[in-house]
Amino acid sequence: MSVYTSVSEAELHDWLRNYSVGRLASCEPIESGIENTNYFVTTTQGRYVLTLFERLPAEELPFYLHLMAHLARHGIPCPAPIADLSDQYLGRLNGKPAALVTRLPGRSLEQPGVAHCEELGALLARMHLAGRSYSAYLENPRGPKWWRFAAKEVLDFLKKPQRALLERELEFQSGQRFPDLPRGPVHADLFRDNALFEDGRISGVIDFYFAGVDCLLYDLAVCANDWCLSKEYGLDNARVKGLLASYHAARPLTDLERAAWPAMLRAAALRFWLSRLHDFHLPRPGMLVHAHDPEHFRRVLESRIAGRTPWMA
Amino acid sequence: MSVYTSVSEAELHDWLRNYSVGRLASCEPIESGIENTNYFVTTTQGRYVLTLFERLPAEELPFYLHLMAHLARHGIPCPAPIADLSDQYLGRLNGKPAALVTRLPGRSLEQPGVAHCEELGALLARMHLAGRSYSAYLENPRGPKWWRFAAKEVLDFLKKPQRALLERELEFQSGQRFPDLPRGPVHADLFRDNALFEDGRISGVIDFYFAGVDCLLYDLAVCANDWCLSKEYGLDNARVKGLLASYHAARPLTDLERAAWPAMLRAAALRFWLSRLHDFHLPRPGMLVHAHDPEHFRRVLESRIAGRTPWMA
Repeated sequence: MSVYTSVSEAELHDWLRNYSVGRLASCEPIESGIENTNYFVTTTQGRYVLTLFERLPAEELPFYLHLMAHLARHGIPCPAPIADLSDQYLGRLNGKPAALVTRLPGRSLEQPGVAHCEELGALLARMHLAGRSYSAYLENPRGPKWWRFAAKEVLDFLKKPQRALLERELEFQSGQRFPDLPRGPVHADLFRDNALFEDGRISGVIDFYFAGVDCLLYDLAVCANDWCLSKEYGLDNARVKGLLASYHAARPLTDLERAAWPAMLRAAALRFWLSRLHDFHLPRPGMLVHAHDPEHFRRVLESRIAGRTPWMA
Repeated sequence: MSVYTSVSEAELHDWLRNYSVGRLASCEPIESGIENTNYFVTTTQGRYVLTLFERLPAEELPFYLHLMAHLARHGIPCPAPIADLSDQYLGRLNGKPAALVTRLPGRSLEQPGVAHCEELGALLARMHLAGRSYSAYLENPRGPKWWRFAAKEVLDFLKKPQRALLERELEFQSGQRFPDLPRGPVHADLFRDNALFEDGRISGVIDFYFAGVDCLLYDLAVCANDWCLSKEYGLDNARVKGLLASYHAARPLTDLERAAWPAMLRAAALRFWLSRLHDFHLPRPGMLVHAHDPEHFRRVLESRIAGRTPWMA
């Protein structure tokens, strides 16, 4: 489980006096998640999620919270931060920065089909369109700069072939520059467990704490590598086409984006391989959730390097 | 019915391209309401209400829309305006100022009980607390200045005893000044049909287009005159106590407010008697909904003048 900071009912009851959400009815720790402490909170007014930020840099938190607020008021079903009586999204609870956000209905899917990937593509396009008017800036915190930092930290733990793969891929990516691709705020972590479905529709996109400004196409690549995975770490044609075509219908993809797609899929695989290597070999003190196996994304990366990369047509 | 400006599916479909709410699935005119044209709008993303503003002064619209947005992001279940791709709440459709807001679940009640009045009181208090940090200002558009304007217009239509009642009440109210009562944005029209209930809880407070800054107690008086009405236009003790006590638990009422309560109930009755007289005797051209009978609020006012006015203790 991943409750790093516990909050008693009495503490929460008092803290909620700073808000206009009614009285505490119940709260329940959320066991999943790695980065933050989360509780489901039910009040006489509604259902919320309380997040205590355990390690995100405090100066980045406003970017995430205001992005969620921005998207929510454009109709994107993402958690909407609740402002307190001083009109602030960010508070403090038990010594940690803390925020209350709306809790969305629905459940995540383990085995999405083509129709679910089409839903995802359409929602991602709407999210990107809505994000265009968001003015705050935070560079993707897990972008190329971070890759080089993380690679330096993990290289010595790797066996020769993995080391070679990592070095070759960093070399390849350093030659890839996409200054003309459409950019904007991206979720950057929209795995299956971060999308909630209800009646076949996406009822919630959650966990924006890896968001940043990057190529919009990067979000599609992160999604494809998770939602459209087939056997042997390849990409399922039909799901990739569904994802891209429904995205394209709302925000048309350009020729430049078509050309960048294979390298972008590799970049998205590299980023998660690196973070999982880092969590695995250099676990943070007090990290309570078992690290994901880094091998999964090494294989995804190898498959993207070797394989065909379906496009929408 | 009250669709003053009709909007075709094709027009709406095109207009929704300015938003990130997905494609139009269906739309349906809303027959109730007097002031504006409203449609239920369903898209691939969610359920909304489209409002075309028919006669509200354009310069007042931002006050209403930003107030709703402010309250919504504080957790108050009110319609949340959806920002368009230029990040604006207010657009134009078929020549009218127009806005898209979230559609809330639930149904209004005709015969609220004590528990419903307690819910209402608690919600109203939370709304007032959340409204305190709203910085825009609009004087209650149906406040004392407007009473004098409306009275001038309707006096000649009234029979002697009604005329005398109106003049006496305006005289009485002009002696009532409450400079020290807590003030802030008030809904000012929270009748039973503007509150939606689901499973015994308020799931929505709607129709903020009479809101303005006034004494917070005025909102309670408007509610009491509608939600707590008993036979013969008196006030039902138990419902009034439920309303006030649950409000008091979240925002304690002061001695000054206790003292002002009888006059405030009269002011709230006067305001609606006047607007109904005005709509009845001077209907606006093109006004499509049959005017409410003004007699109802004349009797409420007489009862408040003559009668006891229960308080919470």
